[in-house]
Amino acid sequence: MNIGYDAFLSRAAEAMQQSPIRQMGTIAAQRTDLISFAPGYPGPDSFAWDDYRAITDRLLRDRDGGLLQYGPTHGLRPLLDCFADLLAARGIQSTIENMIVTTGSQQGLDLVARTLLDPGDVVLLELPSYTGAIAAFRNVQATLAGVRQHADGIDLDDLQAVLQRHRREGRKVKFLYIVPNFQNPTGSLLSRPKRQHLLDWAARENLLIVEDDPYNDLHFEDVASAADTRPIKADDRDGRVIYLSSLSKTLAPAFRTAWVTAPAAYIAKLDVAKQAGDLCTSSFDQRIAFEAIKTGVLARRIPELRRYYQQKRTVMEQALRRELGGLLTWPTPRGGFFLWAELPAPLDSPTVLTRALEQGVIFVVGNAFFVDGSGRQFMRLAFSLPSHAQIDEGVARLAVAIKALAGQAEPKPSLAGAVPPGTTAGDTARRDR
Amino acid sequence: MNIGYDAFLSRAAEAMQQSPIRQMGTIAAQRTDLISFAPGYPGPDSFAWDDYRAITDRLLRDRDGGLLQYGPTHGLRPLLDCFADLLAARGIQSTIENMIVTTGSQQGLDLVARTLLDPGDVVLLELPSYTGAIAAFRNVQATLAGVRQHADGIDLDDLQAVLQRHRREGRKVKFLYIVPNFQNPTGSLLSRPKRQHLLDWAARENLLIVEDDPYNDLHFEDVASAADTRPIKADDRDGRVIYLSSLSKTLAPAFRTAWVTAPAAYIAKLDVAKQAGDLCTSSFDQRIAFEAIKTGVLARRIPELRRYYQQKRTVMEQALRRELGGLLTWPTPRGGFFLWAELPAPLDSPTVLTRALEQGVIFVVGNAFFVDGSGRQFMRLAFSLPSHAQIDEGVARLAVAIKALAGQAEPKPSLAGAVPPGTTAGDTARRDR
Repeated sequence: MNIGYDAFLSRAAEAMQQSPIRQMGTIAAQRTDLISFAPGYPGPDSFAWDDYRAITDRLLRDRDGGLLQYGPTHGLRPLLDCFADLLAARGIQSTIENMIVTTGSQQGLDLVARTLLDPGDVVLLELPSYTGAIAAFRNVQATLAGVRQHADGIDLDDLQAVLQRHRREGRKVKFLYIVPNFQNPTGSLLSRPKRQHLLDWAARENLLIVEDDPYNDLHFEDVASAADTRPIKADDRDGRVIYLSSLSKTLAPAFRTAWVTAPAAYIAKLDVAKQAGDLCTSSFDQRIAFEAIKTGVLARRIPELRRYYQQKRTVMEQALRRELGGLLTWPTPRGGFFLWAELPAPLDSPTVLTRALEQGVIFVVGNAFFVDGSGRQFMRLAFSLPSHAQIDEGVARLAVAIKALAGQAEPKPSLAGAVPPGTTAGDTARRDR
Repeated sequence: MNIGYDAFLSRAAEAMQQSPIRQMGTIAAQRTDLISFAPGYPGPDSFAWDDYRAITDRLLRDRDGGLLQYGPTHGLRPLLDCFADLLAARGIQSTIENMIVTTGSQQGLDLVARTLLDPGDVVLLELPSYTGAIAAFRNVQATLAGVRQHADGIDLDDLQAVLQRHRREGRKVKFLYIVPNFQNPTGSLLSRPKRQHLLDWAARENLLIVEDDPYNDLHFEDVASAADTRPIKADDRDGRVIYLSSLSKTLAPAFRTAWVTAPAAYIAKLDVAKQAGDLCTSSFDQRIAFEAIKTGVLARRIPELRRYYQQKRTVMEQALRRELGGLLTWPTPRGGFFLWAELPAPLDSPTVLTRALEQGVIFVVGNAFFVDGSGRQFMRLAFSLPSHAQIDEGVARLAVAIKALAGQAEPKPSLAGAVPPGTTAGDTARRDR
């Protein structure tokens, strides 16, 4: 007989929700024939297998005592020095006191949430936004306030309106969470004028900005340049920006090696929080990452990775145009891992997902990324993991599912006024196919 | 100019405290000539360097796509199957649904804290207890209630008295945290009758037990047996025990591979908390750990490790008797990494630490492990990391520091009644040397 745990759970635990992306991952792991556009995983053929083999062989032969030992909570010094160089190339000046290694950026988000947010405190974030950040903020019982977003990023008027609305209600607004480069899930790029505007706005309103930048290096050269990806943090004069980046998308996710850059006093607080969180990130993985940076593996691979993901994006766009042109619409991804497609009304992505799963393809429903419960007309299609052939086949399967639903979705003739003037239900249905 | 972050911090962050052990680690890293009895680090010559080299070489040659990828939050299935076997050998029956991999047991403690404790909830724990657990519970603003401890473990009468006192105050008491085997910091072993008593007590009082067991395999065969280390969890019929264990002390800390065993419904909650905490523990490290268990590396090493740490304990005890016999007292460690020494009155360990640091040796002050602020007469001396020669030299340095203080510590003749009848200040001081 097992006792029930419900009576023992914390309020935070009661509020915790399963990640929709992790759920998709569980489904994908159970079916080998499934093609997955769900998780934002790097392609395994993008990994530097031979380099890591040479590095681990050398490290384990040298038997440096620290390699397999507990390490300092803030991270290995030589790796932090490498991060300072990577940051400098992005226009960000930092010293060892301004940085801490985290067990993936997910831990960075979690530590930021725990050190900045009391229950009820307000986080401003984009509609849609990254589910992992949403979960980290929700888990400390923060209030999440969504702000509209356009092709060039967050809507500045709506940002101010949402801020003021929450302040009028007497709520403490702590920070804006934003993914400026190739946002997860939309793939959008925040315009350069908006980046400067946000800095001025944060100073004026006395707020922090949490800038999450895992895809910085991965712009697509046919539609974007490195200059477009200059972080907000690069122009942060008074330390308002807490900047997160990661090696998960460029070296490998398995190493769980990421970092946070922020003013030293705040980094010290993150350090204390991380001590009780996991003591330290794997010293072994940090050393592999350090060696991969020091020996030029990372620098050599970044241009290759840009081409690698750009090609996958192109394959997916071509397949979507071929199979679902006229039904789906989407902005061309300018970098990163994701394509954000909009379904024709009245289709919604939870319904499409059910059908798609029957066809052997999955994605993440758009509403998973909206803190206000909207977004059911969107689908996040990750092109990063599948091969070109799998992308083609997956889109073909998706087309079967969507076309079947679009055919069935023909609304019944309404009795009064439900169909806009000048169209008929039949017109709509034909256009949708 | 940097803005101040104090106005932005959460109440949890304001309450967070620097780990005294991590602090010692920082000091140790700055002085290469220092001998450290501070951190509970395994000896680097205990690591299976060649085995890990062969394993990583094979894994990276095979290029299994999952090796460097994100993995499932609950952990790699084959590794969990290995953990089920390890648990079975300890008398604990478990299935895949009863386990989750954590990024070190520290993350396990953190997830347990977050999912069970609201601010003000009470945790019962031993005086003294493990600082990492104290920090994890404090970080969620729990109330920590210390319970006296004897050579055979926790004082059952005091446990009941402390429980009742907090319940009378209207506080919600959630669980007892306990390290039954070779406790950090005392090295003590909980007696078998007390283990059964605690289970009965938890059922009667409707409480949970969080059993932290990183040192399970490391008993010393001259003074203990495997039967002495049978976990409380092994006799837990109704799922009251949340059991944590780890590979950090037997394979290597760097891999950050540990696990929690508990009822399935609660494991599912830990899984959700971990999703937002770090998504997953390093897949690469988990695979190395799995291969090390599957190919027998772990099983072969455990008897060697018992001898390895037993010898270090013996070297430390011999050195202490030689250098500080009559000044220090301690119970013989029956397993694990730590010797818990008591200073003669009126010496206290913070004062001794200052002197010891001048001599080039460090340890952790006893009061760091006491949630009630007491324990200044104790020192935690970890014998796990230093070599035999370093243990001898470190104890010699410690002896210089303590003898100097004991000489200086001769109390001034008191004016009234401070000296117990039948002794004089001079007697006390002589006995202390």
